[in-house]
Amino acid sequence: MSIFEDKGVNTTSIESLGEFGLIDHLTNGIITKNSSTVKGIGDDAAVIDMGDKYQLVSTDLLVEGVHFDLSYMPLKHLGYKAVAINVSDICAMNGDAKQITLGLALSNRYTVEALEELYDGIKLACEHYGVDLVGGDTTSSTSGLMISVTVLGEVDKNKITYRSGAKVNDLIVCTGDLGAAYLGLQILNREKEMFKENPTIQPDLTGNDYVLRRQLKPEAAIKYTRILKELDIVPTSMIDISDGLSSEALHLSKSSEVGITLHEDKIPVDYTAMNLANEFNMNPIFCALSGGEDYELLFTIGQEHYEKLKKDPDFTIVGFVTDKSEGNNFIANDGSSHPLTAQGWDAMKNS
Amino acid sequence: MSIFEDKGVNTTSIESLGEFGLIDHLTNGIITKNSSTVKGIGDDAAVIDMGDKYQLVSTDLLVEGVHFDLSYMPLKHLGYKAVAINVSDICAMNGDAKQITLGLALSNRYTVEALEELYDGIKLACEHYGVDLVGGDTTSSTSGLMISVTVLGEVDKNKITYRSGAKVNDLIVCTGDLGAAYLGLQILNREKEMFKENPTIQPDLTGNDYVLRRQLKPEAAIKYTRILKELDIVPTSMIDISDGLSSEALHLSKSSEVGITLHEDKIPVDYTAMNLANEFNMNPIFCALSGGEDYELLFTIGQEHYEKLKKDPDFTIVGFVTDKSEGNNFIANDGSSHPLTAQGWDAMKNS
Repeated sequence: MSIFEDKGVNTTSIESLGEFGLIDHLTNGIITKNSSTVKGIGDDAAVIDMGDKYQLVSTDLLVEGVHFDLSYMPLKHLGYKAVAINVSDICAMNGDAKQITLGLALSNRYTVEALEELYDGIKLACEHYGVDLVGGDTTSSTSGLMISVTVLGEVDKNKITYRSGAKVNDLIVCTGDLGAAYLGLQILNREKEMFKENPTIQPDLTGNDYVLRRQLKPEAAIKYTRILKELDIVPTSMIDISDGLSSEALHLSKSSEVGITLHEDKIPVDYTAMNLANEFNMNPIFCALSGGEDYELLFTIGQEHYEKLKKDPDFTIVGFVTDKSEGNNFIANDGSSHPLTAQGWDAMKNS
Repeated sequence: MSIFEDKGVNTTSIESLGEFGLIDHLTNGIITKNSSTVKGIGDDAAVIDMGDKYQLVSTDLLVEGVHFDLSYMPLKHLGYKAVAINVSDICAMNGDAKQITLGLALSNRYTVEALEELYDGIKLACEHYGVDLVGGDTTSSTSGLMISVTVLGEVDKNKITYRSGAKVNDLIVCTGDLGAAYLGLQILNREKEMFKENPTIQPDLTGNDYVLRRQLKPEAAIKYTRILKELDIVPTSMIDISDGLSSEALHLSKSSEVGITLHEDKIPVDYTAMNLANEFNMNPIFCALSGGEDYELLFTIGQEHYEKLKKDPDFTIVGFVTDKSEGNNFIANDGSSHPLTAQGWDAMKNS
């Protein structure tokens, strides 16, 4: 209802554009004007010139019912995760997170004790990542909880890593392992369904600590950016893996105007995740490619760094960069090549 | 419902602490550790050391059903307001806003065209205030619209103005006029009620342009911080008037550890607001003290600056700073003195 005349004849649904299409559409043509603005929309963080260094700025929202389900997400973990996923964006630019501001909108069903738990998680993450909570806004909402975190970080000017610097013949590397966070989510959803059927049964989560931790208390990849610094490696391009390996690889490909080829047999999946995927009748590589929320890093490096990384189990070379004309490809275990899509690869539909 | 054991025996309601009490409670004991963090929670913006200058950072949320009502708030105005009220926080530190990030959570009832309108307002405000939109996050919500803006600004190190610097005998000055935004809201609420009763009647908003503009399209006080710069005045303390004159005066008093005395006969109210208050059977001074959303500045200056400001209609001296022991007082038109409270002054209950 509006007291003003309704002009709403055009009603294009947001779904029809998709998240990235929508942002492109709305921010198309925005030109930055301040001399201190080095890079605006389009990477993991914006870049501001601080003089000696670059400052990195990123904002991420977590919305109840969309990004988290409080029936299995303890508030302390949620607070921790809200900070960690923002720090992850700073890692993706090869920087160090320094400060956050926190916006909270919450309905009156939240108690002071509930907020204390949320803050305990936020403070723990701030401590762990060496980040100062410097400000924010707390307000009521008509329903649910919404958390908005803005993170500020710093990076040496000669170490900043954008999505756009990948070069032909670079190696594509990912940190840690993939797919576990998505399988943690499957377990939580299964236990929730069982709890709904019989609320007297306590959830059985034993043996699944690793995948549950990956879902409930993800860590930003500060450990890996530190190793890269020690090894004197500056990636040519980098992004954090929040939406799944294939989607992030396509972002690097698009921003760098190159082609990317991924090899199925190289994709790192933890053995507990592998076993669980089988239990859920899922393809573990699908979980890695499309699951999301692993918050590992995906980056490209020149081949001269190969020797430094090849034996470090923290890093896995999952593919290589090609000319744009070759497109984005997925080489399956049987040697067959498939176009890489945001959902994985085309053969997945039949697998 | 939680699949985990419920430990929720303590259930202190958030209302029992109030917004400021809650923030104090949750952020109590937070110590900032990074050398670049100059000032954390507790002012209009956090302060980061950029080397030559200080950077200012502030986050504000706008939640549908709490801060705005789309039945009378056009989306373009809402976008403009979301930017303006954040720029206002930078003005309150005597700085210039430079960049914003934008977090949007919205339900699927919003169309692309609706978002375009919102963005038109955001872009217009960015243009007007010389601010770059550098990043953000767009996500779905289960209900309504939530806007989170983080603003970054800059200020010369010797010009930064905190809430905490007011000195005994300083003059208290406010910019522009007060109460109009609150009266604009009364008109919109009245028209909404009439529309509900008879939807065929178009709203009659004629003659109320000024107060409606103050409510629907508030401006940050960049005009006034520029004049202060030209006059070579650095306020000893400053805050923006978002919650009403009395509440903001009490913030300055608390942070500066001084007493504040306001004079009823000095408080600037526009004549259209004055007339409207009478129409609504409201005390216009109440609207100024407690109405909020005027986004003027309230600041203190040393008496040596009196001559520079006394004839400028942009600025009104509304009181003076006393020793803390004298408390916070409101001198009514009849000369009687009353304790100043966040709601106005004690005699208001009977007026």
